[in-house]
Amino acid sequence: MKDILKDRPNVLPFLPLLYVGWADHAMMPAEVQLIHRRMKEMDWLSDDERELILDWSNPANPPSPELMGSWVELIREAAERMDTQSRQSLAELSLKMAEQSANGAANWDTEEARSAMGDIESALGYVSLKDYRNILSDDQRKRIAELDEEPCFDSAAMSKLLDGEYADIKNRVRQLFAQPDFQLRIIKNKEIYREQTLKWTKLMAAEGLGAISYPKANGGEDDITQYASVFEIMGYHDISLAIKFGVQFGLFGGSILGLGTQKHFDKYLTDVGSADLLGCFAMTETGHGSNVRQLETTATYDRAQDEFVIHTPHEGAGKEYIGNALHGEMASVFAQLITNDEEHGVHAFLVPLRDKKGDLLPGVRVEDCGYKLGLNGVDNGRIWFNQVRVPRENLLNRFGDVDGQGNYDSSIGSVSRRFFTMLGTLVGGRVCVPMAGLSAAKKGLTIAIKHSLKRRQFGPENEAETLLLDYPSHQRRLMPLLANAYALDAAHKYLLQRFAKRTEEDMREVETLAAALKSYSTWNTTHTLQECREACGGKGYLAENQFADLKADTDIFATFEGDNTVLMQLVSKGLLTELKEEFENTNFWGLFKTFSKQFADSVSPFNDSGNTEEEHLLDTGFHLETFKRRERAMVMELGQNIRRLTKMGMAGYDAFIRNQTNMIALGHAYAERIVLEQFAQFIQDCDDLELQSILKKLCDLYALSHIEKHKGWYLEKGYMKGDKTEAVTQMVDRLCGEIRSDASCLVASFNIPPHLLVAPIAL
Amino acid sequence: MKDILKDRPNVLPFLPLLYVGWADHAMMPAEVQLIHRRMKEMDWLSDDERELILDWSNPANPPSPELMGSWVELIREAAERMDTQSRQSLAELSLKMAEQSANGAANWDTEEARSAMGDIESALGYVSLKDYRNILSDDQRKRIAELDEEPCFDSAAMSKLLDGEYADIKNRVRQLFAQPDFQLRIIKNKEIYREQTLKWTKLMAAEGLGAISYPKANGGEDDITQYASVFEIMGYHDISLAIKFGVQFGLFGGSILGLGTQKHFDKYLTDVGSADLLGCFAMTETGHGSNVRQLETTATYDRAQDEFVIHTPHEGAGKEYIGNALHGEMASVFAQLITNDEEHGVHAFLVPLRDKKGDLLPGVRVEDCGYKLGLNGVDNGRIWFNQVRVPRENLLNRFGDVDGQGNYDSSIGSVSRRFFTMLGTLVGGRVCVPMAGLSAAKKGLTIAIKHSLKRRQFGPENEAETLLLDYPSHQRRLMPLLANAYALDAAHKYLLQRFAKRTEEDMREVETLAAALKSYSTWNTTHTLQECREACGGKGYLAENQFADLKADTDIFATFEGDNTVLMQLVSKGLLTELKEEFENTNFWGLFKTFSKQFADSVSPFNDSGNTEEEHLLDTGFHLETFKRRERAMVMELGQNIRRLTKMGMAGYDAFIRNQTNMIALGHAYAERIVLEQFAQFIQDCDDLELQSILKKLCDLYALSHIEKHKGWYLEKGYMKGDKTEAVTQMVDRLCGEIRSDASCLVASFNIPPHLLVAPIAL
Repeated sequence: MKDILKDRPNVLPFLPLLYVGWADHAMMPAEVQLIHRRMKEMDWLSDDERELILDWSNPANPPSPELMGSWVELIREAAERMDTQSRQSLAELSLKMAEQSANGAANWDTEEARSAMGDIESALGYVSLKDYRNILSDDQRKRIAELDEEPCFDSAAMSKLLDGEYADIKNRVRQLFAQPDFQLRIIKNKEIYREQTLKWTKLMAAEGLGAISYPKANGGEDDITQYASVFEIMGYHDISLAIKFGVQFGLFGGSILGLGTQKHFDKYLTDVGSADLLGCFAMTETGHGSNVRQLETTATYDRAQDEFVIHTPHEGAGKEYIGNALHGEMASVFAQLITNDEEHGVHAFLVPLRDKKGDLLPGVRVEDCGYKLGLNGVDNGRIWFNQVRVPRENLLNRFGDVDGQGNYDSSIGSVSRRFFTMLGTLVGGRVCVPMAGLSAAKKGLTIAIKHSLKRRQFGPENEAETLLLDYPSHQRRLMPLLANAYALDAAHKYLLQRFAKRTEEDMREVETLAAALKSYSTWNTTHTLQECREACGGKGYLAENQFADLKADTDIFATFEGDNTVLMQLVSKGLLTELKEEFENTNFWGLFKTFSKQFADSVSPFNDSGNTEEEHLLDTGFHLETFKRRERAMVMELGQNIRRLTKMGMAGYDAFIRNQTNMIALGHAYAERIVLEQFAQFIQDCDDLELQSILKKLCDLYALSHIEKHKGWYLEKGYMKGDKTEAVTQMVDRLCGEIRSDASCLVASFNIPPHLLVAPIAL
Repeated sequence: MKDILKDRPNVLPFLPLLYVGWADHAMMPAEVQLIHRRMKEMDWLSDDERELILDWSNPANPPSPELMGSWVELIREAAERMDTQSRQSLAELSLKMAEQSANGAANWDTEEARSAMGDIESALGYVSLKDYRNILSDDQRKRIAELDEEPCFDSAAMSKLLDGEYADIKNRVRQLFAQPDFQLRIIKNKEIYREQTLKWTKLMAAEGLGAISYPKANGGEDDITQYASVFEIMGYHDISLAIKFGVQFGLFGGSILGLGTQKHFDKYLTDVGSADLLGCFAMTETGHGSNVRQLETTATYDRAQDEFVIHTPHEGAGKEYIGNALHGEMASVFAQLITNDEEHGVHAFLVPLRDKKGDLLPGVRVEDCGYKLGLNGVDNGRIWFNQVRVPRENLLNRFGDVDGQGNYDSSIGSVSRRFFTMLGTLVGGRVCVPMAGLSAAKKGLTIAIKHSLKRRQFGPENEAETLLLDYPSHQRRLMPLLANAYALDAAHKYLLQRFAKRTEEDMREVETLAAALKSYSTWNTTHTLQECREACGGKGYLAENQFADLKADTDIFATFEGDNTVLMQLVSKGLLTELKEEFENTNFWGLFKTFSKQFADSVSPFNDSGNTEEEHLLDTGFHLETFKRRERAMVMELGQNIRRLTKMGMAGYDAFIRNQTNMIALGHAYAERIVLEQFAQFIQDCDDLELQSILKKLCDLYALSHIEKHKGWYLEKGYMKGDKTEAVTQMVDRLCGEIRSDASCLVASFNIPPHLLVAPIAL
């Protein structure tokens, strides 16, 4: 063997590749072709060398076990001389092989040679040396195993990057929760649990955290981003507290701030922020949840008394699921405003529910919603009003007012626009809720990943059992979800910024963004927690390990603050409106046709449908382009369908309904594109090169795992060929394996302190 | 208009198709081609008629709104003359159009014409007339709406078909649960809940239901199928009861019956069946759950005392999650048997835990597992043994025994085979658990579907709001899951039969079947309940509507009785062994290659990769072939990969691990094929034609929604073309719409009585 190679030293660097080519999967013609093509470019190879490589890579003539054995011997020698690294690449090993011959190194240590060998390696599929224990000596294996245990990167720096400009307030809340008063515990009885949650809410208020988004005059800091940051950290604590806090300060207080005027701020906001005045946000009714416009509670102006009469016309028009209903002294009640027999649509009214002793006022009936799937620390109830009278000033009159004669006046002429403007007060909730949901997902991932780095089960004979996270199926299960969490973190930051800086002009865009991210992100939370629970097996089922509450408490996130399926359709409607505006003042239909044709043609220039090169697959530009094309194609198709249906006489409502499934799919595609864009931007803005390179891998995994998820679409529409989607799958596998090495630090970077992590399996 | 058509009467039947062709989506060249092709076969068309149809279907020249309007007028006239049916087809309408001309009817009322028009209709995509309100008069619309409300088929007959030969026992249990003692209630305190569950368990035993699978001599009926049927109905009641029942009678009693001998039956089984002797199945340890073979508890034979010493060597080797741990008087403890310093592997021993007063015996330590995500009515605990002594006869000695000298003897020579034979006692649990899980899924579907047939939200202006189930997205969400439930019902029946009649020869196959169906079905339960909960919105979150418990209690089904991901890998190993046996006594490797090549070639004769005809898409033969091909291709690829890896020197363990993701995917493919096969067989065996035709639709939906789910694979591998997968999606949409009409009866057929359904939104 050594004799043969003595005269053919340049064959040596090929041995690791040949070995893996044969060992990992029988050599495929396409792989052999690539080897030969690359080989041709290497003008330093002799004819003899070429011939031998051809011979050893001939698919028709696999090498004998003996020949393979002698390759292994030579490879092992080179491997012994390498620095120990947990993920040594084959191409590096090839370079080491070259050093074994006197004249070899010079030829091989060039950019050109490296690139060629790297290409071959990626064609053969990513393989870490670790997978080939038999190549390595015992000692080498041990060193690699040790390296695996070592910490990976500076998680404190990553944590700082993630907390960003909100680090101070977030750390303050993290520390606040370390106080004994905030110790997490499992409470099953709802009355006791609600008392605890109420106590916590008041403690938060006492810290000034409840009022933080209110004007300075009312004890606040006029800063919604601080409020959202507090809410985000509350996702690591008891989520019943987060929701009660959100109801009191965000929804009840927010309705006063968003729909009321200075007189209301002066009278109520300070007490709301200090939790001295507890209140409800009474919008949803039993009969109408998603369809707020058709609420049935009435607020009729009685000119004689200068009062509004709040009334529930029938049992099914009672308010339902109302948080704070059992503790609240007052409620913002959404009702159809009627003055002088004329309806003016839904408006909000401040309606006292209880006196200071806590007794219900006349005409108000409240029932406990009872036990819920989760959030049992929140006192949700049903509320009915029987001719309850409130003074005229209790109308939250920012967008519509009634004078003493019962004349209605609004700065917004269009009933529809007025309605949607008022509903805009809900957007804050849609910005914040998924942030707490993402925190829950991060907590679940932290617990599951930490567990999987301690728990071993099954293994090779006579060796230690395998760590759960070393199983490819476990990596496949958790790593893409870890990538999602990082990607969504960037997207939520972006949304929060956009929301904080919103103007009348971009409000609609911000609403679309919020609706899309709320739905996409809360569904991701549900999915993540389910996978994490299962990944922890029986331990994940014990309440002490947190999944019971994490799952149960966040399950409703898909429903409240706007049902996810309804919101996704809103998103699509928003996108269709944008599309229409693009073509405004033109012959829409004609232009549409032309554009469709151009678009169809542009598929061919997009001639990387079969490109499986590593550089391409890991190119963020390619990812963005791919996501955008899909979204664009979907919105065009949807617009076309609806346009045709309505043009031909179908009612608008029916036309939308017939395309409902496509609308929901488009909502997802839009959300995914936004998330990818914002994650990529976040990475680009990061000036720590080490963190950047780690985040880039997460971004690659986010992008490729989503392309893989939708490969049916890409293949069906001809955007990709089978070779390419197979290469995407291989790359996802590889990225999962690579990110596994950093997994421990990646969850440490979420910076969830032990007093919030709590789960014994994660401590 | 009428003038033009007077001389061209045969154009009339084309009008509905032309209308929909243009209205539903702009006419596509492929559709036009089909119309022209079919038109050519119609020799009764005049040249003038042909020309007019060509003109009106020219994609380059869409009809004017005025022209469309005049078509509508004519179509409406015909529609008025039709019988009211909720889902009138366009083709039928075409025939009605033909009647409008004197000479028309004769030509058109033929098999040939019907088939041609049906073809065109399906090419245009399924559209019900209902979707075109504007075609219909108000009166016609009203009649269709009324028809929608009518009951659909004889659900009592369907229910009888589903209960099958177990109807008597199932009805007995349904009625038993109507007794006040069994009334369902929400209990949050675990101690109170456990007392309730214990009481229920004893009541079940008193009815003779616990012992039903035991020998007649022990108060039983020696019938595992009856036991399974009881368990299935318990899935509609409190699932804590089902699990406690399963631990006591199935696992504890089952271990005595399966691993013990006559002396054990005589001594214990009657008391176990009557619940006078409560016991545990103490297999899982904190350190070892899935990997039972490496359990660390020891049972060392002490010859001097003729006793076994049961011992937990360290804290992490304690038994964990053990059901009945706080009530149990005795446990079947799985431990490493050691005699004369020799290890003989895992065996089971009956170890007393408590005296008759309920006090723990010396050396036994028990801790409560505390609150769990669900199943809080089950007393799960951890158990440690400190040198606990039991007489030699307490070894359950069916497969291995120890004599007074400490000599070990077993009828099964191979340690490995002995281990798996003993583990075979777990198979009964894998057969039964998913049946209760399926019941939970059926209950969830019943609640969600009944709710969606009452709940309205949003709607066209000035009309009643739309029923949730009339939303395509809601149909898409629930109808495929309803099809899954029916399909799995048939598959579980089959598995139960196979299990009841198992022999030594087919035991391995039955184990593979049980492992696959357990995993596939319990995951389906989790997924189904999540969708159903979300589909019920806020109402679904209230504990009274059952999803809280349904979801929480079944969540662990994916973990216990064998973790689903581990079981799916077992399935694949089983399939690989079968594959290997196929090639036994031949040159495996060579034959494999030949076979692979043949297989690859056989893709081309499978030349329906682009066939989108309705008849083909709804052909069960096509479905079965498609599922089988995928499974076969996956097992071949997996076998090839592993063969190559091990041949080239990779350790077997590593080779499997590297293919883990593929193994899990193959497990799914196998389960899906089995389910489809058994559902198709069940339908074929049904002699009620009406039920058969309804079940056929569910089977089509099961098959096509799974093909759609895996379209990425079919496209990637070249088994299908994009046109075809798009047609599959269209057909899934259509089937969802069709099955929606029967949805009410389809859930009524599950026959879940009101006292078990309980949820206010479903009553």
